[in-house]
Amino acid sequence: MSKSKSAYSTPGKSGKIERHIIVVWVDNEAGVLARIAGLFSGRGYNIESLAVAEVDKKKHISRITIVTEGTPEVIEQINLQLRKLVPVHKVADFKRTDKDILFRELALFKILANSKKQEKIKKICKKYNPVVLDKSSKSIVIQVTALRAEIDKLALDLRKYGLISTSRTGAVAMTKGSKIFN
Amino acid sequence: MSKSKSAYSTPGKSGKIERHIIVVWVDNEAGVLARIAGLFSGRGYNIESLAVAEVDKKKHISRITIVTEGTPEVIEQINLQLRKLVPVHKVADFKRTDKDILFRELALFKILANSKKQEKIKKICKKYNPVVLDKSSKSIVIQVTALRAEIDKLALDLRKYGLISTSRTGAVAMTKGSKIFN
Repeated sequence: MSKSKSAYSTPGKSGKIERHIIVVWVDNEAGVLARIAGLFSGRGYNIESLAVAEVDKKKHISRITIVTEGTPEVIEQINLQLRKLVPVHKVADFKRTDKDILFRELALFKILANSKKQEKIKKICKKYNPVVLDKSSKSIVIQVTALRAEIDKLALDLRKYGLISTSRTGAVAMTKGSKIFN
Repeated sequence: MSKSKSAYSTPGKSGKIERHIIVVWVDNEAGVLARIAGLFSGRGYNIESLAVAEVDKKKHISRITIVTEGTPEVIEQINLQLRKLVPVHKVADFKRTDKDILFRELALFKILANSKKQEKIKKICKKYNPVVLDKSSKSIVIQVTALRAEIDKLALDLRKYGLISTSRTGAVAMTKGSKIFN
């Protein structure tokens, strides 16, 4: 929203809005999530999706994956602010377009459909590792895993087939190869 | 933590701690997530996992799935507080043990393993819709979808095979059959 739409403005290269995925390792303790979410909203930064779960039971470390958009300056600010928070162990920041990073999201769709339509729905979802979690004579719940944009498109397609409920996790991310974030 | 551990205390049936999954539909606007996370931490309630993503682009509705634990009284309090928040449209609350609800979680695992070990890893993950997202001569990134407890167990098993990184979405939930939450 901060990007001027005027034909006379000349937004520099630095002003270009990019989608980033920010991964934050934090102590799993009360209030950390509220502080991190507050850091975004307090500065007017948008959170598109957020997923958090404990990934190290012994050390009580949770891993938060946040999808956000902003100019490079805004993203740098967010990173700096996150690193200042005490319960934050490390922060990794990726561009959505980074080829070395794997992104994945889970979605559940409930569709009102008879068995004939259900077959079509399974075909539409075929590329996205579909799993039928529930089925009745007039409804189906199907699970897919895909990229965010693919799930956006799928949800749009499934509306024509009677989509009545959607649940999405938001993206999680991991580097390719044997290296891990430092 | 509020449950007394004393052998002399007699926690009533009402004091039994249960795991709940709370689904909240909210306006996708700045600050909502911080307020909801703050509602939990401010009262000392624990968030085990949280997943949020927009599910209705036209109406800008996000769906938040929170896994939490508490006595029935605490869970009721949380539900009441959530319903009081202005940008909250509706709240659904399920026990983890509810048979009519589908729960699912996505995890990415990176394991340092040669090709022989990689075959074993794929076998271990076989029941959980595994997808190999990346593979090198000494590493593998594998995606699974399963219940939370199953992913806990898998992560433990994979530690023996060289697990070096885990990313989890936390649970999302959906009712079985053709009905949706009201």
